[in-house]
Amino acid sequence: MIIDCHGHYTTAPKELGDYRDQQKADLKKNAQHQAQKGTLKISDDQLRDSVEGAQLKLQRERGTDVTIFSPRASWMGHHLGNASTSKAWSEHCNDLIYRLTKLYPKNFVGVAQLPQSPGAPIDSSVRELARCVEELGFVGCNLNPDTSGGFFNGPSLADKYWYPLYEKMCELRVPAMIHVSEACNTPYFQTTGSYYLAADTVAFMQMMTSDLFKDFPELKLIIPHGGGAVPYHWGRFRGLAQDMKRPPLTEHLLKNIFFDTCVYHQPGIDLLTRVMPVENILFGSEMIGAVRGIDPETGHGYDDTRRYIEQTPHLTVSTRHMVYEGNARRVYPRLDKALTASGR
Amino acid sequence: MIIDCHGHYTTAPKELGDYRDQQKADLKKNAQHQAQKGTLKISDDQLRDSVEGAQLKLQRERGTDVTIFSPRASWMGHHLGNASTSKAWSEHCNDLIYRLTKLYPKNFVGVAQLPQSPGAPIDSSVRELARCVEELGFVGCNLNPDTSGGFFNGPSLADKYWYPLYEKMCELRVPAMIHVSEACNTPYFQTTGSYYLAADTVAFMQMMTSDLFKDFPELKLIIPHGGGAVPYHWGRFRGLAQDMKRPPLTEHLLKNIFFDTCVYHQPGIDLLTRVMPVENILFGSEMIGAVRGIDPETGHGYDDTRRYIEQTPHLTVSTRHMVYEGNARRVYPRLDKALTASGR
Repeated sequence: MIIDCHGHYTTAPKELGDYRDQQKADLKKNAQHQAQKGTLKISDDQLRDSVEGAQLKLQRERGTDVTIFSPRASWMGHHLGNASTSKAWSEHCNDLIYRLTKLYPKNFVGVAQLPQSPGAPIDSSVRELARCVEELGFVGCNLNPDTSGGFFNGPSLADKYWYPLYEKMCELRVPAMIHVSEACNTPYFQTTGSYYLAADTVAFMQMMTSDLFKDFPELKLIIPHGGGAVPYHWGRFRGLAQDMKRPPLTEHLLKNIFFDTCVYHQPGIDLLTRVMPVENILFGSEMIGAVRGIDPETGHGYDDTRRYIEQTPHLTVSTRHMVYEGNARRVYPRLDKALTASGR
Repeated sequence: MIIDCHGHYTTAPKELGDYRDQQKADLKKNAQHQAQKGTLKISDDQLRDSVEGAQLKLQRERGTDVTIFSPRASWMGHHLGNASTSKAWSEHCNDLIYRLTKLYPKNFVGVAQLPQSPGAPIDSSVRELARCVEELGFVGCNLNPDTSGGFFNGPSLADKYWYPLYEKMCELRVPAMIHVSEACNTPYFQTTGSYYLAADTVAFMQMMTSDLFKDFPELKLIIPHGGGAVPYHWGRFRGLAQDMKRPPLTEHLLKNIFFDTCVYHQPGIDLLTRVMPVENILFGSEMIGAVRGIDPETGHGYDDTRRYIEQTPHLTVSTRHMVYEGNARRVYPRLDKALTASGR
């Protein structure tokens, strides 16, 4: 089985965008506007239409089986509005993911967007995580390490601010993918190129310079986009850890941190699979996501990452199986049950 | 000849730090304090002592010849104080580099720190660049793309704000290395791990999303630290450019952007030399810099990048020569004259 650990619902019906636009309009009139969840009218047929010719078609074409599916990352927009804005918005986004997992239980397993908001307590995210896992059957969440949308002025991931969330994650046995949203300080940042990759690298370093995993030995975090700049600069990070008298990175971080394979060319995947222990690599494509074109050098989609995994010389049949399936089942302990329930 | 394009004066005598501490003390009393350059008493013997057992020793041991040498990047500290602070500080830092190039003309060629300051006009940097190139014989400058020290809230590198500097660089025929300084928003950022690499990637994307090199076809910029996350994610960047209807990156950027080899392990250098055209790679080590230890996996310094260049299968004798010397002479057009004058 091939489990894609990184897919966002980037093809939602127009009504979802309209709902968000109404939130923005309300906030324009009054930045303190207290959002009510209200209703979002999207039919099951609309949901089916939105994925049949898109994610499901590409799953079939590319030979992947299940996508660990979450709301569109660039639309999380935690910097917008206030805590009530994020709560109403996140609940709707998660509800749609839930409905898709019910319509296509063999194809999608849910991961939650959290209703984070700059300066707001993390409690609301803890509650939404519990709702999504316990009531909707989700197996993980996306955690935004920079709710400011590009100004990097909030608490480090090692800060006690996050501890109630980490406690709940450990209690529920769900991991988080560390994933920022849209950058609001353009053109300084471009969201899917520089901002995502910068945040990935920043997150790794925050963990390296802290004792987060001493406090939470069971906590599991996935750094997407192949770990940002981390594997390419693995020698730099090993050396920095050594200069800082931190433990070797394999001990210090690699029991808790995992990297997906959202690296869109063969040399990148070759490096990732050469440098990182295979236990720490999870198959992912972020399909349909940041890069949607066909690579003229290969004739295939840039984000058709299975091809690179198939071709890399650094994996064998058994280690490739770990990347495709085994590691995901370990990192997302609730996945087994969700897949069995779906008849997989 | 092996030219190291990336070395900072990280071993300056204590007096330089004392001078900076006095600046900070003055600013603490009055944030608007107008700095006077004043004097800095450091003897030639002190300068010799500061590099003989350090950079020069490692040059000899590692078999490199010349370092393109600039003031310590993490100490540029453009976020501190005001324009007068940066002006006095940068002039002293550059003066020390100049003196070292006079003491060791065969070993060091100067590159300037610019007296940038958040919100201040760029004119002061233009003047200091002209002084350093025309009077002190420097061959380039370091350009800080985020003078805020980690909040990424200034103008993009494609902004017209920088144009007077780019005009002067083209007129003088000197390139800039894009290099941030110390992060002030710790522990969110760690300077040499996450902040440097994030800024490198951000800089690349700013150029990709703009038409900067249409306006300045002769402008040459070096992205240090192996280009941040860029070569590892080259497929992503090619795909993003394609989705954005930008020209292919080889045309759009690679006549103007270059990457150094400050990547501290063999797999990283192998990727860099596999992915990037050899014309775009300049030998660099950032010695003595961010990572100073010995890699237990190799028994050699992490930053002894020559070893990786020697061992990578993607270079031949002639392309290795380009990385070591030929490309640097092309990217720094004033280097030939400086080297000839030194008897090299």
